[in-house]
Amino acid sequence: MNLIEIRELYKNQEAYLDKEITVGGWVRSIRDSKAFGFIVINDGTFFTPLQVVYHDDMENFEEISKLNVGAAVVVTGTLVATPQAKQPFEIQAKTVTVEGASAPDYPLQKKRHSFEYLRTIAHLRPRTNTFQAVFRVRSLTAYALHKFFQERGFVYVHTPIITGSDCEGAGEMFRVTTMDMGNVPKTENGAVDYTQDFFGKETSLTVSGQLNAETYAQAFGNVYTFGPTFRAENSNTTRHAAEFWMLEPEMAFADLEDDMDLAEDMLKYVINYVMENAPEEMKFFNSFVDKGLINRLTNVATSEFARITYTDAIEILKKHNDKFEFKVSWGIDLQTEHERYLTEEVYKRPVFVTDYPKDIKAFYMKQNPDGKTVAAVDCLVPGIGEIIGGSQREDDYEKLATRMEELGMKTEDYGFYMDLRKYGSTRHAGFGLGFERCIMYLTGMGNIRDVIPFPRTVNNCEL
Amino acid sequence: MNLIEIRELYKNQEAYLDKEITVGGWVRSIRDSKAFGFIVINDGTFFTPLQVVYHDDMENFEEISKLNVGAAVVVTGTLVATPQAKQPFEIQAKTVTVEGASAPDYPLQKKRHSFEYLRTIAHLRPRTNTFQAVFRVRSLTAYALHKFFQERGFVYVHTPIITGSDCEGAGEMFRVTTMDMGNVPKTENGAVDYTQDFFGKETSLTVSGQLNAETYAQAFGNVYTFGPTFRAENSNTTRHAAEFWMLEPEMAFADLEDDMDLAEDMLKYVINYVMENAPEEMKFFNSFVDKGLINRLTNVATSEFARITYTDAIEILKKHNDKFEFKVSWGIDLQTEHERYLTEEVYKRPVFVTDYPKDIKAFYMKQNPDGKTVAAVDCLVPGIGEIIGGSQREDDYEKLATRMEELGMKTEDYGFYMDLRKYGSTRHAGFGLGFERCIMYLTGMGNIRDVIPFPRTVNNCEL
Repeated sequence: MNLIEIRELYKNQEAYLDKEITVGGWVRSIRDSKAFGFIVINDGTFFTPLQVVYHDDMENFEEISKLNVGAAVVVTGTLVATPQAKQPFEIQAKTVTVEGASAPDYPLQKKRHSFEYLRTIAHLRPRTNTFQAVFRVRSLTAYALHKFFQERGFVYVHTPIITGSDCEGAGEMFRVTTMDMGNVPKTENGAVDYTQDFFGKETSLTVSGQLNAETYAQAFGNVYTFGPTFRAENSNTTRHAAEFWMLEPEMAFADLEDDMDLAEDMLKYVINYVMENAPEEMKFFNSFVDKGLINRLTNVATSEFARITYTDAIEILKKHNDKFEFKVSWGIDLQTEHERYLTEEVYKRPVFVTDYPKDIKAFYMKQNPDGKTVAAVDCLVPGIGEIIGGSQREDDYEKLATRMEELGMKTEDYGFYMDLRKYGSTRHAGFGLGFERCIMYLTGMGNIRDVIPFPRTVNNCEL
Repeated sequence: MNLIEIRELYKNQEAYLDKEITVGGWVRSIRDSKAFGFIVINDGTFFTPLQVVYHDDMENFEEISKLNVGAAVVVTGTLVATPQAKQPFEIQAKTVTVEGASAPDYPLQKKRHSFEYLRTIAHLRPRTNTFQAVFRVRSLTAYALHKFFQERGFVYVHTPIITGSDCEGAGEMFRVTTMDMGNVPKTENGAVDYTQDFFGKETSLTVSGQLNAETYAQAFGNVYTFGPTFRAENSNTTRHAAEFWMLEPEMAFADLEDDMDLAEDMLKYVINYVMENAPEEMKFFNSFVDKGLINRLTNVATSEFARITYTDAIEILKKHNDKFEFKVSWGIDLQTEHERYLTEEVYKRPVFVTDYPKDIKAFYMKQNPDGKTVAAVDCLVPGIGEIIGGSQREDDYEKLATRMEELGMKTEDYGFYMDLRKYGSTRHAGFGLGFERCIMYLTGMGNIRDVIPFPRTVNNCEL
């Protein structure tokens, strides 16, 4: 159909004023008097809706007047400027055709609904202001990330979703199987016989694409993976979902400094992109969801991020132990309260904390000469704490093998990963950005269920 | 590290000629004489490698001379033009630092390896010419698709991977579970007790994001989903994988004509983007993988696609039944031989075939007034046959419900989907593009295992 998008009207109104145009959209509100009426419609392309004026000289004036919120209409008429009104223009309709009516029990009425209620109608909530804004920002953010990495020549690698290995042993994994659950094949010893499963072995859903991405970094130099990851953690919090998206860049010939430079550039780029391309949505969040949001993001986008070692950070935090529920000492993992104190109170801007004790970090992180710490980095931002975690990777075969042995891991299970240290190993580094956490940060939304179109959490897999 | 990428040298050589620069990369070949030697290195940023000349005045001349293929080096030296030679320039090295040696058993030697062999070393094959080209094109194609849709204002929706429903009943599905496979909980009747599973119900990996995407199209107008999808089909062919990516746009206020326009624009855009951004790779495919590739793609990018109904296509094909293994008559599903005949022999350009018999198509497709056909469309292209399948969706509640009953489906199981026909239904349409099939088409590669970084097929889930 040859429709003009409402976005186009707002962005380019001079081209359409006083001309006859046709738009399609869904009724947000409708009110009529005897001789005419107003319909406010939204077509999903722009945050601000469009007002339509219709008159009783239309054949279907009664049909229109009875329309319910949510109905779909196609409107042809003239776009006229309305300098006296709140909105810049409106359509004086010649025809209003009902594309699809909306039953009287439409679950979204004009009143404000709670986020809890809207979660129960995940298929309809994107029609509300808040979720129009959230999911447009989500789309723009995903694209901004691609754009950032592609413009820098990074190669996008689709790392696998179904995996036969467990990257970090991080949390519980979901098993993937085609075996008959009512009659699982067993071996002679009574163990589950995975040789009869689809892949001939035990398989799960990935928790991270990093190890696979490393193999491609050693071929292409700079790569990134961006896709769904899974955790079967039985935790019912506002920050955990069983299925979420993760962005993981990986760079060869790069150290921890390069890693931090990349993370800082990326965050600034994404913030700027979203603020430039969704100003109406960001203003809405700033007014109705999280006052102070735009200031906070502007501060991040324009600050030079601070950089401090874990050891120095502990020294600073120790002096304020009276303020913390969990007391600080060297060796602990930083809690959100410590992270936020550092970035909000001490630095008042984002801060990279580097070189964590090796015992609280993953096996693949590069061991520092001190024998105690590894070249890990977390990026902490005001309002949330950790938003990015990364590291330089151990590129020395012997050091990696020794560390894996200490941790009870078998190098044979990681043959491909060890090969990277055998054949043309390079210093290399990367990080992970939890995409939903990033969207929460950009929008101020407080619950991860409200930034995922169809969230999956314990006991919840609807639609 | 402050390295200049080889791509940058080739794209912008004037800026670097006769200057000292530092590059990092992996040794593709090395040959030495008494006083000097040549190393050819590739850093993964550009298809063409770079020649490095080193001399015996270097301290580590012997170390360098003994390097094996695959070793990682960092080279500092002067970029000098070589007008007499095959390559436009080379580096006269001042220093060559070994970043990581390559063990003598490096599996990739200079000789040509078979694709079959390379599949056994999926972590190393991206270091070869062919797979550098394939996976760079894969990355560029993914980005081109995002760029195409974002530039047109489509909203990217992440439809869920784990699902409680089965879209088309298409093929076998993978079950997702956290239950103990060795001791599956049962109900009193002896059935599997899925209430004890992670989501409290039976769940699987998605086979399509379409139904979910439709809900967002009825809010945003134009949307697309692009993510992994899964089929547990026990078929060991060159065209089937258990895990693959699928792109699915969906448009509200759109009919089958709009759908075809979008598909045609998209294919042309992607072909042009890849030919412009990976000319060296495309030339390589055209020379070594699929002669005629560039002609074929250019033809697709510059043709107006033909449009014909299924019924008319059958009439044409029937006249050539002597040429087909499967004889043609109204009602059959078109086979690849028929599709290719239409696009390669009859039209010699891409062709959309529309309005298929309803009995061979999915329940959600819009029923045509003839009562026999539905508003489905397949896009056929020379060299492959079907590359895109789509349809206008049934937007009438009663017609959809009746069709579902005929097929033994329960509308209660699709409450969210029926709601879309109850509240502001619009004519709408969309299609699916199998991403791997698209990459095979763009590169001429003949096996789906060779266009997926870490392919998953029956009995194969390595790395």
